[in-house]
Amino acid sequence: MFQDFEVTARPEDGPPRLANLRAQMAHEGLDGFLVPRADAHQGEYVADCDARLAWLTGFTGSAGFCAVLQDQAGVFVDGRYCTQVKSQVDLACFTPVDWPEVKLGDWLKEALPKGGKVGFDPWLHTADEMGKLKGGGVTLVPVENILDRVWADRPAKPSGKIVEHPIAFAGETSADKRKRIARDMGAKAVVLTLPDSICWLLNIRGSDIARNPVVQAFAILHRDGRVVLFSDPAKAQGLDIDVQDWAEFEPALRMLQGPVHVDPATAPLAVTNILRDAGIEIHEAQDPCILPKARKNPVEVAGARAAHLRDGVAMVQFLAWLDNEAPKGGLHEIDVVKKLEGFRQVSNSLRDISFETICGAGPNAAIIHYRVTEDSNRAIKPGEILLVDSGGQYLDGTTDITRTVAVGTAQDEEKSCFTRVLQGMIAISRARFPKGLAGRDLDPLARYPLWLAGQDYNHGTGHGVGSYLSVHEGPQRISRISEVPLECGMMLSNEPGYYREGAFGIRIENLIVVESAPALAGADNREMLAFETLTYVPIDRRLIVTEMLSAGERGWLNAYHTKTLEMLGPLVKGTTLDWLTKACAAL
Amino acid sequence: MFQDFEVTARPEDGPPRLANLRAQMAHEGLDGFLVPRADAHQGEYVADCDARLAWLTGFTGSAGFCAVLQDQAGVFVDGRYCTQVKSQVDLACFTPVDWPEVKLGDWLKEALPKGGKVGFDPWLHTADEMGKLKGGGVTLVPVENILDRVWADRPAKPSGKIVEHPIAFAGETSADKRKRIARDMGAKAVVLTLPDSICWLLNIRGSDIARNPVVQAFAILHRDGRVVLFSDPAKAQGLDIDVQDWAEFEPALRMLQGPVHVDPATAPLAVTNILRDAGIEIHEAQDPCILPKARKNPVEVAGARAAHLRDGVAMVQFLAWLDNEAPKGGLHEIDVVKKLEGFRQVSNSLRDISFETICGAGPNAAIIHYRVTEDSNRAIKPGEILLVDSGGQYLDGTTDITRTVAVGTAQDEEKSCFTRVLQGMIAISRARFPKGLAGRDLDPLARYPLWLAGQDYNHGTGHGVGSYLSVHEGPQRISRISEVPLECGMMLSNEPGYYREGAFGIRIENLIVVESAPALAGADNREMLAFETLTYVPIDRRLIVTEMLSAGERGWLNAYHTKTLEMLGPLVKGTTLDWLTKACAAL
Repeated sequence: MFQDFEVTARPEDGPPRLANLRAQMAHEGLDGFLVPRADAHQGEYVADCDARLAWLTGFTGSAGFCAVLQDQAGVFVDGRYCTQVKSQVDLACFTPVDWPEVKLGDWLKEALPKGGKVGFDPWLHTADEMGKLKGGGVTLVPVENILDRVWADRPAKPSGKIVEHPIAFAGETSADKRKRIARDMGAKAVVLTLPDSICWLLNIRGSDIARNPVVQAFAILHRDGRVVLFSDPAKAQGLDIDVQDWAEFEPALRMLQGPVHVDPATAPLAVTNILRDAGIEIHEAQDPCILPKARKNPVEVAGARAAHLRDGVAMVQFLAWLDNEAPKGGLHEIDVVKKLEGFRQVSNSLRDISFETICGAGPNAAIIHYRVTEDSNRAIKPGEILLVDSGGQYLDGTTDITRTVAVGTAQDEEKSCFTRVLQGMIAISRARFPKGLAGRDLDPLARYPLWLAGQDYNHGTGHGVGSYLSVHEGPQRISRISEVPLECGMMLSNEPGYYREGAFGIRIENLIVVESAPALAGADNREMLAFETLTYVPIDRRLIVTEMLSAGERGWLNAYHTKTLEMLGPLVKGTTLDWLTKACAAL
Repeated sequence: MFQDFEVTARPEDGPPRLANLRAQMAHEGLDGFLVPRADAHQGEYVADCDARLAWLTGFTGSAGFCAVLQDQAGVFVDGRYCTQVKSQVDLACFTPVDWPEVKLGDWLKEALPKGGKVGFDPWLHTADEMGKLKGGGVTLVPVENILDRVWADRPAKPSGKIVEHPIAFAGETSADKRKRIARDMGAKAVVLTLPDSICWLLNIRGSDIARNPVVQAFAILHRDGRVVLFSDPAKAQGLDIDVQDWAEFEPALRMLQGPVHVDPATAPLAVTNILRDAGIEIHEAQDPCILPKARKNPVEVAGARAAHLRDGVAMVQFLAWLDNEAPKGGLHEIDVVKKLEGFRQVSNSLRDISFETICGAGPNAAIIHYRVTEDSNRAIKPGEILLVDSGGQYLDGTTDITRTVAVGTAQDEEKSCFTRVLQGMIAISRARFPKGLAGRDLDPLARYPLWLAGQDYNHGTGHGVGSYLSVHEGPQRISRISEVPLECGMMLSNEPGYYREGAFGIRIENLIVVESAPALAGADNREMLAFETLTYVPIDRRLIVTEMLSAGERGWLNAYHTKTLEMLGPLVKGTTLDWLTKACAAL
């Protein structure tokens, strides 16, 4: 079982640890110290040894930081976590701060003594991040990590073995990728610090981090296509990869000839500082693996199709089971999560879940980032709707799917909201659009049916997805803030939702991949793109108000269900097949 | 009759004028001289005395410029005008250049002798415009306008009388407007150079320019709310406005105390240069009248409703007449334009048309910026569809409406394209959207029905509209390039289209105004905006494929036609009322 449901918050651990850290601050002559959630690789998940923010404060959210001063400690968290943080930290010692509404620079200026100095670990913050804090009248000093000194029982760095990611899944050799990147290189070398960039470039995967099968490492790509990794060499035993020890990274940086390509948005500030101190010219630009990795090649897309078919079988077995069991009453959210993971395990291909399953019954589903624990575990009551957002990591692809289903009879209001969310989801699925548009240009299409009813949802419509890598992958998104033009092969989620606090939550999510729009009679002579749907799993017909759908929307849904039955029907049997057949009937 | 249909191009006038200009260039030691379409006020229309580009080259388009060198003269025009320019200029002397594909800086660098100097009149170019040309290795020198020296029969500056724009139409006194602007002023004075800003601020209108009832003037608004106009004082006889002669503007600028607010995007570079030379501090920011002018007040919105009702009567009489006459054959585009202007004149309230009517039959309608002339005048053939885009200037408002109508029986392909355009137009009309969104965020909603069929149109979906001012008014638009958040009172056109070269053209246009979204049961507690429709004139039901419409779209259309009949029915009679009643029948 990958997921657990433990309540890990121990607010009482915070105060003595905070006292120890403050003693170190005093010892170093610092008035403050920054403790971020991030590690040196800026990923969504961190290894236990890097969970500094959680260790110090108790707060386990996926973003935020603590600004520790002698007389106060502000825990900066965004809107998703303002409730959670209050239950996880000792509020006598830690003060939650609304972020980014309150800016760190302003807060420090207010709270610090005049001329106060705040230390930070330059390996845990990017150049862009620290650049934004400059000139705010606060002195920020890069220092050795003084929290690590007082973290007595700090876990060891992860040492997951590196495995090759076969060409059958990667679709392009590492040599070709390296040649391609090096060809367009304006610099003599590129410093790579994002684990998924490094894994993509070298066609390797690892197990250093939960949920994301990445190798924690830094890397230097030279213009001749050579790559040196900096990590734990033991991880690469038996592989033809040049892995040097973590400790060699800094000396290797100092030896480089400029210009050296560094991504200020993702690389630790330490990298920039080391190069600059050594007098090496820096060429600042986006990590050159990000875009090629985002444009999945045909082998990766084929892999995604296979992974989704396998995952679809598990989902259908799960949904059939749920439909049979839930209306009886007695099931709880944790039972559902466990059962779903079990169905995914049956294929023997599941490497991990791709994130902690979100399973929210009734009002819990309105908490967008809800994760069930032993404490919050709610009974699945007939008459409520249930939201389940989950995914799997398979060698051939990463999945991410949300289905919202009726348990017993749903209410009319839930049905009409569900139908609007579905209309938005269909609008993206069916979209054709001129080449050059970004996710921002499509985002309104998903919201329009809700807008007409005066409704909306407070999250993006879709995120990029990796290929047996991170389930959240940039740079493309379907969101108001995404200006990255969509390109063929980019994989995305399509997940509009609707949330009514204290009542219910709805989300419907498929993965899609950008393709050239298929030929069409009467079409203009202009280059257009479209989406291929990857996820085929029934959408709960009982929650759909058929009369609300246009002919085109209804046609899409019926074709979707026909194809779902065609694809999954041969792979299930008995009561599951019966359930699937009914679930895919035309509306 | 406001519109004429003369073919004004006299390509043969260009060469001798060009020779005279080149002699002046040589005399001044210049290797080149820029002749823009714009005047000092950067409007869409120029007075005859400012039509330098047309005088020199013969090209009469609404944008572009000529770069005159000794051995060549490039006429820079955008995609709209690449055909027209070829018929208007003497191609032996003038070379059309695709702009902005070819940049002036690059073209000059290629064409000029090394170290070459190009003169320009700093009153005809903005600071932003000239700033973009800086550093391209070309020396640009502000000089006296040497073209004006050789323009022997140059018309006099316009001297239209200034009239007060009554509070009954303006809705806010000039004193209040000036107080409001001055209150938020970060500078000691604001220089205003846009005629519609000045007219709005002073509640005045003029007749210096065709189609736009503006006063040509410069103005200085002082922090105490005092405004001095620089124009022809005779224009303001009998009015309580401080108007000084044009010649006093430069000395007045030199006398100002800084900082002085100047809009680098719209003010002549000369203004910046004069202030800078006088050592006066400049505060660069957008013209402070632009946004308040764009947010129409309730009186202006009420005026717009009244103007649209009056204009709607003329349109309905016109459409009824057209429907009776056109299928007989024999009508030409010019007949239609004349007749329409005649119907608008009947009310005795028409001050001007708001732009040259676009009337395109069959393939002519596919030319987006088509203006009929004696040469192009096409017969209206039964079996073709006809596009008519027109508008009126009334004291209480400016109208702009496009209807595309069947003459006889339309083809199925035309009908399905028309229906998609209509669906896009309805999508904008019905939209509700969260406050804070810009026109860019709504633009895809208008295109989506066409996109699904692989179709699109190469123009924005909507432009801002003035209140008895310019029919094209910024800053808001519904367009891929508009990042200006929409606000209550902003008036816009809503005009998706579809154009098939050599075959047909479709556009449907209503004016709309942004309002707070009306209350709605089940709506979220979030601030949303919506549009009130101003234009009520039937949309040709014979061109609609009813089955393609969703229930919501059909409902909107039927409600629109019901309201159209309710509003216009009491104002027409006889055969027009019969026609209207049929045209407004439910689908």
